[in-house]
Amino acid sequence: MATGAGDDDQQACEVTVVDFWANGFGMRARIALRELGVPFRYVEEDLRVRERSELVRRMNPVHRSVPILIHAGRGPVCGSLNILEYIDDVWGTDNGSPLLPRDPLQRAHARFWADFVDQKVFGTQTRFLKSRGGEEKAAARAELLDQLRSLEGVLGDGPFFAGDGFGFLDAVLVPFSSMFYGYEQHGGFDLEVECPRLVRWVRRCRERDSVRAVLPDEVQMYELHKEWYGIQ
Amino acid sequence: MATGAGDDDQQACEVTVVDFWANGFGMRARIALRELGVPFRYVEEDLRVRERSELVRRMNPVHRSVPILIHAGRGPVCGSLNILEYIDDVWGTDNGSPLLPRDPLQRAHARFWADFVDQKVFGTQTRFLKSRGGEEKAAARAELLDQLRSLEGVLGDGPFFAGDGFGFLDAVLVPFSSMFYGYEQHGGFDLEVECPRLVRWVRRCRERDSVRAVLPDEVQMYELHKEWYGIQ
Repeated sequence: MATGAGDDDQQACEVTVVDFWANGFGMRARIALRELGVPFRYVEEDLRVRERSELVRRMNPVHRSVPILIHAGRGPVCGSLNILEYIDDVWGTDNGSPLLPRDPLQRAHARFWADFVDQKVFGTQTRFLKSRGGEEKAAARAELLDQLRSLEGVLGDGPFFAGDGFGFLDAVLVPFSSMFYGYEQHGGFDLEVECPRLVRWVRRCRERDSVRAVLPDEVQMYELHKEWYGIQ
Repeated sequence: MATGAGDDDQQACEVTVVDFWANGFGMRARIALRELGVPFRYVEEDLRVRERSELVRRMNPVHRSVPILIHAGRGPVCGSLNILEYIDDVWGTDNGSPLLPRDPLQRAHARFWADFVDQKVFGTQTRFLKSRGGEEKAAARAELLDQLRSLEGVLGDGPFFAGDGFGFLDAVLVPFSSMFYGYEQHGGFDLEVECPRLVRWVRRCRERDSVRAVLPDEVQMYELHKEWYGIQ
């Protein structure tokens, strides 16, 4: 599935992304490539199957995880933030609007919060969805909302995280919004009430072709996570 | 403690690093600044004390951790890899030999293995040092040696990770070598036998003023970790 490319075009693509449709980390790479107008071939790796494909074992022997970006004649790049940096290093300047801001401090700011999403929000999401009730669930629920509100604070009043243009931190966080329906179902809250500015940011992101083409159906996402985490 | 600077020079430094002498993550930033010839003021944050200083709480309210790099008139940068990227973004080109290679794929390679050190090696080190014996210790010991051998494989036959010059991944990993004595004491092995090329790389790194000035005494390091992890 390349940017508006048919089957024949896919064969000619110099970029391949190996990913799973519901992998929020991999969605980042697919959104970023579309934002920068880089056509790519998409290879689905079904993470519901225990065994990894030969391609994944060969291209990412250390972690055997996706996403993997394969740049023909160059090599594989693994790890979603690493892939975003690579995409920006290779194609960011060509199209005139790189994902990361040019100012070093703003770059550091974007990377800091991307790390926050990976190191804090993802872990909290997992604990929240695994929790069945009682204090454990209440604590995870409160922590998740706190973290989303922190991110809302970073967003401020701007349309996107780094200002007027969709960029690095938008690409990092927006895949998580495909779980917002799941958060609401599991937590019994309304994110429109809890984080109204963040919800408006999600809507703005979803107006973009890049995001709309990549984000999966949120009900399907929740169904899959219910299966993974044994939610009744 | 700035690069060859006296007390008066320290006042004039536009860069401050807040760190703890035994913090391997923070050593990266201090080594990188010295490599690029950027003078800095050093402020010690004693991590043995439970409460964080007002400076740390103000400069890194999200994590309340060190290292923090404060660039006067600009702002704080937190997170050791983020700080290395910032140092490279601001001063890397000025002095002609940036920490990260210029080639996007080589940059991705360095970032991939830096992430491996943080996400894998650090966790394994902690489990290893906390383990008291039996299967748990044997498993952690084997895993740690495997990971060090993986890194040795990445090093290849070159003097440094990215080739002839000391760079990003060298700065990321070399602080861990201040625990190699502790690994040997705790694990009952000889790293010279297990990972001879890695040990030779450590020696090459330690010939550099930047590294020698920053790496603490390895016996003191092990004593501190024994205290932290309750090793008899």
